Amino acid sequence: MTDLLLLPGDGIGPEVTRQARRVAEVVAPDLAIEERLFGGCSYDEHGLPLTEETLAAAKAAKAVLMGAVGGQKWAGAPRDKRPEAGLLNLRAGMEVFANLRPALCFEALADASSLKRELVQGLDFMIVRELTGGIYFGSPRFIEELPEGGKRAVDTQVYTTAEIERVARVAFELARGRRNKVHSAEKSNVMDSGLLWREVVTDLHKREYADVELEHILADNAAMQIVKNPKQFDVMVTDNLFGDILSDAAAQLTGSLGMLPSAALGAPGKPGLYEPIHGSAPDIAGQNLANPLAAILSLEMALRWSLDRAEAADKVYAAVVRALEGGARTRDLGGALTTEQMGEAVLAAL
Amino acid sequence: MTDLLLLPGDGIGPEVTRQARRVAEVVAPDLAIEERLFGGCSYDEHGLPLTEETLAAAKAAKAVLMGAVGGQKWAGAPRDKRPEAGLLNLRAGMEVFANLRPALCFEALADASSLKRELVQGLDFMIVRELTGGIYFGSPRFIEELPEGGKRAVDTQVYTTAEIERVARVAFELARGRRNKVHSAEKSNVMDSGLLWREVVTDLHKREYADVELEHILADNAAMQIVKNPKQFDVMVTDNLFGDILSDAAAQLTGSLGMLPSAALGAPGKPGLYEPIHGSAPDIAGQNLANPLAAILSLEMALRWSLDRAEAADKVYAAVVRALEGGARTRDLGGALTTEQMGEAVLAAL
Ligand SMILES: CC(C)[C@H](C(=O)O)[C@@H](O)C(=O)O
Ligand SMILES: CC(C)[C@H](C(=O)O)[C@@H](O)C(=O)O
Repeated sequence: MTDLLLLPGDGIGPEVTRQARRVAEVVAPDLAIEERLFGGCSYDEHGLPLTEETLAAAKAAKAVLMGAVGGQKWAGAPRDKRPEAGLLNLRAGMEVFANLRPALCFEALADASSLKRELVQGLDFMIVRELTGGIYFGSPRFIEELPEGGKRAVDTQVYTTAEIERVARVAFELARGRRNKVHSAEKSNVMDSGLLWREVVTDLHKREYADVELEHILADNAAMQIVKNPKQFDVMVTDNLFGDILSDAAAQLTGSLGMLPSAALGAPGKPGLYEPIHGSAPDIAGQNLANPLAAILSLEMALRWSLDRAEAADKVYAAVVRALEGGARTRDLGGALTTEQMGEAVLAAL
Repeated sequence: MTDLLLLPGDGIGPEVTRQARRVAEVVAPDLAIEERLFGGCSYDEHGLPLTEETLAAAKAAKAVLMGAVGGQKWAGAPRDKRPEAGLLNLRAGMEVFANLRPALCFEALADASSLKRELVQGLDFMIVRELTGGIYFGSPRFIEELPEGGKRAVDTQVYTTAEIERVARVAFELARGRRNKVHSAEKSNVMDSGLLWREVVTDLHKREYADVELEHILADNAAMQIVKNPKQFDVMVTDNLFGDILSDAAAQLTGSLGMLPSAALGAPGKPGLYEPIHGSAPDIAGQNLANPLAAILSLEMALRWSLDRAEAADKVYAAVVRALEGGARTRDLGGALTTEQMGEAVLAAL
């Protein structure tokens, strides 16, 4: 049985995942690790970004660590066979409905942020994004020709009580282990799904999490507040589309984007899907330039959340911090280390 | 016939609009100005946030200048009678489909931004947000009870070729008078409406605006880039929901939020709707503390775009800059001037 399934994917995915694998082999040498094609490279080989076999392997593993998918090369592929479609199918197939996206500012990098240092120093903010519902998956969705000429495109945002409740629960549970505060972001002033979102979160809070501080915030105001004063936040829970946008803005703010991991979790006991927040970066792919720390920290999350290896996770985290403090920097951090050298800096610090 | 219809609205709306009116009476004393209730105060008086008479007056005027609407007081009003519903009805009724939201950094305020000074100094970036379509107005939209318990909420995003084309045209025209660059933001990798959006913008560009530089950008990446390096942008065109969020983030970045105006424009010759980007700020309403510059600059836009008074607009703009350079600051800008005193500082600089 596979403990950890690696899906290196496209672009810089394989390079950064390789370093994460090296780290895994040192801190948890007994893990059964398997690798499979996923994304554009799977499309090239099998005609599909996600084959049935790979999805089955992902569901059977304890954790899945993905590199990155996509690139200009597949822009012409049929829409439902693009790397991105494979990613959506993987999320849906694994039922990983809660996407944890930390916006964390590493002390050694506080000056790399576009925000003033005092606004990001010590920032530790977690966005919990709903990942298997909303406008990403709702139907109907189509483009039709209009009789009078031109076209009409439709997408549908759908949320049920159960979908909102399970992701809100993850946010409340997380907050209890942190600073005990949840912001729930939606557009309840405009959207019916926002109205239901607010109602369900309010009810769940009252019923089971009254000890956690809850604040409702409109998504546009959330975008403002993230830019103005991100340290006011502890945990923010929001829908798939708002989460996509808000978590990218928050991650960018930290100045540590090349270093941020993410976890997508499903029901307890089901495998989690871990991936760096950065994309496939085709412009630097294959050049040994990418920062592998986000992949290594994604491994760290996998060890902690899905593989029951908290001690190994602690070691990895400490080694990353030590490597950074020792001055290890890839190009994105203003340094000159290669992907491999950064991996070695972490291994040396272990 | 009314030239300028004032809708002071709720919260700080009346205070800031009063100062804009004083400025208007000096730079364009012959304008026929009328005032009407709108928003929460109209609901209190007439049971509706936007009466038929007021909508008719708005459509008959040359320009409408709004203060702000909404506040906790009306949170319990029926949904379709809340101040926000009045605002959506006003936008739809006036058919103002193109919302121009500048993110402008005033030199005197460059240090007030949460971003590092060098990233915002000289920033002049315009977001053109589609304002009368998309998920704000699409149907079906409803919340239903599910037979198995719980509820299900649905919102619908709809865009037609014609809706996309007319707002993209505004963006291209604007860019020609600026730095000649348009970014078009959507989620064409996930949404069918995003796919149509990209197709229509691409076609229009090829047909009529090939001289303007066009770049497509995914909305999540747009959020990142706005935070990372806003000065890369000249004009960004996007849909109603993305525009709501991205323009708020961009405006906040400037450090000049209390100063930013906006314009919503319809077909040529139709009246425009002008409003400060800030909200009704109930916490400081009635205290003579609010910054009236956003309202005064909204008047400036109205003079320029709808009232054919470019010269008067130039005077207003210059007076605002002069007042700021002379050190005039309301509380939000770190100063101690009252709303009225700031209005007087602008009048004195005229
Ligand atoms: C690649 C794309 C489909 C994806 C998304 O929109 O979810 C990405 O932006 C992300 O956030 O993981
Ligand atoms: C008040 C609300 C309905 C409105 C919107 O979402 O459009 C506001 O946020 C805005 O941007 O003008």
